[in-house]
Amino acid sequence: MTVYTASVTAPVNIATLKYWGKRDTKLNLPTNSSISVTLSQDDLRTLTSAATAPEFERDTLWLNGEPHSIDNERTQNCLRDLRQLRKEMESKDASLPTLSQWKLHIVSENNFPTAAGLASSAAGFAALVSAIAKLYQLPQSTSEISRIARKGSGSACRSLFGGYVAWEMGKAEDGHDSMAVQIADSSDWPQMKACVLVVSDIKKDVSSTQGMQLTVATSELFKERIEHVVPKRFEVMRKAIVEKDFATFAKETMMDSNSFHATCLDSFPPIFYMNDTSKRIISWCHTINQFYGETIVAYTFDAGPNAVLYYLAENESKLFAFIYKLFGSVPGWDKKFTTEQLEAFNHQFESSNFTARELDLELQKDVARVILTQVGSGPQETNESLIDAKTGLPKE
Amino acid sequence: MTVYTASVTAPVNIATLKYWGKRDTKLNLPTNSSISVTLSQDDLRTLTSAATAPEFERDTLWLNGEPHSIDNERTQNCLRDLRQLRKEMESKDASLPTLSQWKLHIVSENNFPTAAGLASSAAGFAALVSAIAKLYQLPQSTSEISRIARKGSGSACRSLFGGYVAWEMGKAEDGHDSMAVQIADSSDWPQMKACVLVVSDIKKDVSSTQGMQLTVATSELFKERIEHVVPKRFEVMRKAIVEKDFATFAKETMMDSNSFHATCLDSFPPIFYMNDTSKRIISWCHTINQFYGETIVAYTFDAGPNAVLYYLAENESKLFAFIYKLFGSVPGWDKKFTTEQLEAFNHQFESSNFTARELDLELQKDVARVILTQVGSGPQETNESLIDAKTGLPKE
Repeated sequence: MTVYTASVTAPVNIATLKYWGKRDTKLNLPTNSSISVTLSQDDLRTLTSAATAPEFERDTLWLNGEPHSIDNERTQNCLRDLRQLRKEMESKDASLPTLSQWKLHIVSENNFPTAAGLASSAAGFAALVSAIAKLYQLPQSTSEISRIARKGSGSACRSLFGGYVAWEMGKAEDGHDSMAVQIADSSDWPQMKACVLVVSDIKKDVSSTQGMQLTVATSELFKERIEHVVPKRFEVMRKAIVEKDFATFAKETMMDSNSFHATCLDSFPPIFYMNDTSKRIISWCHTINQFYGETIVAYTFDAGPNAVLYYLAENESKLFAFIYKLFGSVPGWDKKFTTEQLEAFNHQFESSNFTARELDLELQKDVARVILTQVGSGPQETNESLIDAKTGLPKE
Repeated sequence: MTVYTASVTAPVNIATLKYWGKRDTKLNLPTNSSISVTLSQDDLRTLTSAATAPEFERDTLWLNGEPHSIDNERTQNCLRDLRQLRKEMESKDASLPTLSQWKLHIVSENNFPTAAGLASSAAGFAALVSAIAKLYQLPQSTSEISRIARKGSGSACRSLFGGYVAWEMGKAEDGHDSMAVQIADSSDWPQMKACVLVVSDIKKDVSSTQGMQLTVATSELFKERIEHVVPKRFEVMRKAIVEKDFATFAKETMMDSNSFHATCLDSFPPIFYMNDTSKRIISWCHTINQFYGETIVAYTFDAGPNAVLYYLAENESKLFAFIYKLFGSVPGWDKKFTTEQLEAFNHQFESSNFTARELDLELQKDVARVILTQVGSGPQETNESLIDAKTGLPKE
C-alpha cells in the first residue's frame, strides 16, 4: 500500500480587532473585518498529519488520540473545496495520482489542553486545511487557502499567516473575497509578547457561534459597531502595526475588546463572557499603565473569561513587576524564567514604591495558569508525522 | 421667635429607561429622556422638614441626624431658585412675610439605609425642594418645581411625581424645558410591584456623575444609544405603560438596562457596575420567564450591582416560587409575608417540577437583603416634623 502523507503545524491567533457576527452562516462570512496576532507555535500549536491511499475505506479523523466525527458540515465543506482544487490539477496533468478520489485519514493533536479555552478551533482548521493542501501539493496562494479554512472556522483563516494578520470581510455573496492577508510578518515587529491568564471558570453558557448570531439579531448597538466603529478602527490598527506604534495598537485593542463585549451585553438575553476576575485584570492593566505614565500593556478577551495581555519585550520587567506579584503562585512561570529572573520581578515591584492601590492577592486563586508566549510564524510543514506511513493509521 | 416650617416625604424612583449622560453638567441637562417608576413611600422615603425665621443665622442642613455641608453647588442652585420664586411672590404682595430673605434650617432622614445603594439622592433632593416649595407656598406646578430638583440631582426631578414618570430631556440651553411629567398615576396601574435584591459588594469604583461623563466622552456606541435607541424606546415604553402592557414594558426595561451597562463597558477605561451576582440574577429572570412561557418579571440595574425586579401583583406567587427559593435566607421577607405565605411559595416551587437548571443556592450568600415594595405616590406633605418649631432646631 502506497500511503501519501503530509504533516503541518499551525498556530493559534488572538484577535485584537474582534470577529463577531456572520452575514452568511453557511459560508462563515463575517459582518466585519478583523485583525489578529499569530502566537508562537513553540507554546501553542496544532500538529496535523493527513494521509491518503486508494485502499482507505472512509474519511476518518482522530483528535487528540480519539476517533472523532468528520461528518459535520464545516469539515465537509473544507474537504470538498480541497478535493475540488486537487481535481482541477489532476484534470490538467494525467500523470498525477488521483488523490482527489481517495479517502483521507487525518490525525491531529494540540500541544495545549483544549480546556484552556484558547481558540483551538482556529489552529485546528488551519492545520487541517494546510496539511491537506500540502498533501495535494496545491499551487494556490496562502490567502486562497485561507478562504477554505474560513469555511471550517471563521477565525481559522487568520491562522494561515504568521505575524499580524487581517481577515478582510469581502463583499461578494460567494465569499471569494473574504480571506486573510498578512499586515506584517512576525520578523517585522518581533518584540510583541503575550501573556495569557487562564481564568478558572465553569464552561461558558453560550457558544461563539450561537452568541454572535444572537448579537446580530438583537443588539441595538451592534449596527453602529460594524458600520462605523470597526471600519475606522481597522485602518487605525493596521497603521499602528505597520508603524510599530504600540500605544495606539494597545489602546485600539483594549477598546475593541470592550466594544465587542458591550455588544454581547446588549444582546437579548444578554451574553456575559467576562467574569469578575476578568474585570479585575482589566482594572489592573489600567492601573499599571497609569502607574508608568505610558501604555505598556493591552488586554483582550475572546468569548470567555481568559485574559490575553500583549506587551513589548522591552517592557517585560516593568509589566511582570506587577503581574508576577499578582499571579506568582499560578503555574506556568518556570517554563520561561529562572528563579533568579522571577526574584528580579519581585524585587522590581518592591522597589517601585507602588502604593496607589491595594494588591488583591486573592485574585490569583481564580487564575488556573499563565501561558507566556509571543508573536510567531504561520503554518509549517514538519517531518514529525502522527500517521504510520505503512498502515495509514495513527501511530501508537 | 416665629418659626415657619413645612415637612414633606418624597419617594425613591427606579428608572426603567435610564438617564446616563449630561449635555450640561452645571444644569444637569441630560443627553436623553428617561422613564421611571416611583416606589412606595411605605418602604422607601425621605422625610424632610424645612424651617425659616428671621433669627436664623445661616443655612444649615442635618442629614440622618448629622450636620451636613450645604455649601455644594447643587444644593445652592436649588436654594437660589426657590428663593427667587418666593421673592417674586413677595414683590407682588407686600403683606407676605419676607421668607426669601431669611436663612433656612433643613432636617432630612431616610427610612432606609443609605448604604443599600438605592437612589437616595433622588428622594433627598425631591424632598428638599418640595419641603421648601411648601414652606414658601409656591404656586408653581409640580413639573416646574421638578426643574429645580433636577439641578440638585438629575433623577430627583422624577421623584416629584408618583406612578410612572418621564423626564423629558428638553432642547433649551437654559434647561427650562427639561423637567418631569407624569405618564400615568400609580392608581392607573396599581398592580406594579418591585423586589429589590440588595447585592453585597464593596463600594463602587466610579460615581454616577463621573461615570456618565466618561461614557459621553469615550464610548463609541453611546451616540447610537442616545440618538436612536432611546428615542424609539421612550415612545414604546410610554405606550406600554398607558396600555398596561407588561410584556412590552418588561422587555424594554431589561433591554434598556443592558444597553446602559453596555455603554458603560464601552467606555475607556471601561466601567463595570454589575458583578457576577447581578449576572446570575439576570440569568434567573430569563430562566423564570422561559419556564412560564411568558414575561412575568423584568430586571433593571442602576449604577451598582443591586437588582430591581418589576412584576405584576397577579404573578407574585409564580415569581416568588423561584425568588423565595433562591433568596429565602436573606432578610426582608417577613416584613411583607406570614410564615404560611412563605411556605406557600416553597410549596409552589416544589410542585412546579422545575428541573431545567440547577438551583445555585450559593447565590443568596451574595445578597444582603430583599426589599419588597410597589408603585407609589409622589411627595406628600406631613405633620410629622423633624424640627422643633420653638427653637428651629432638629428635634432630639
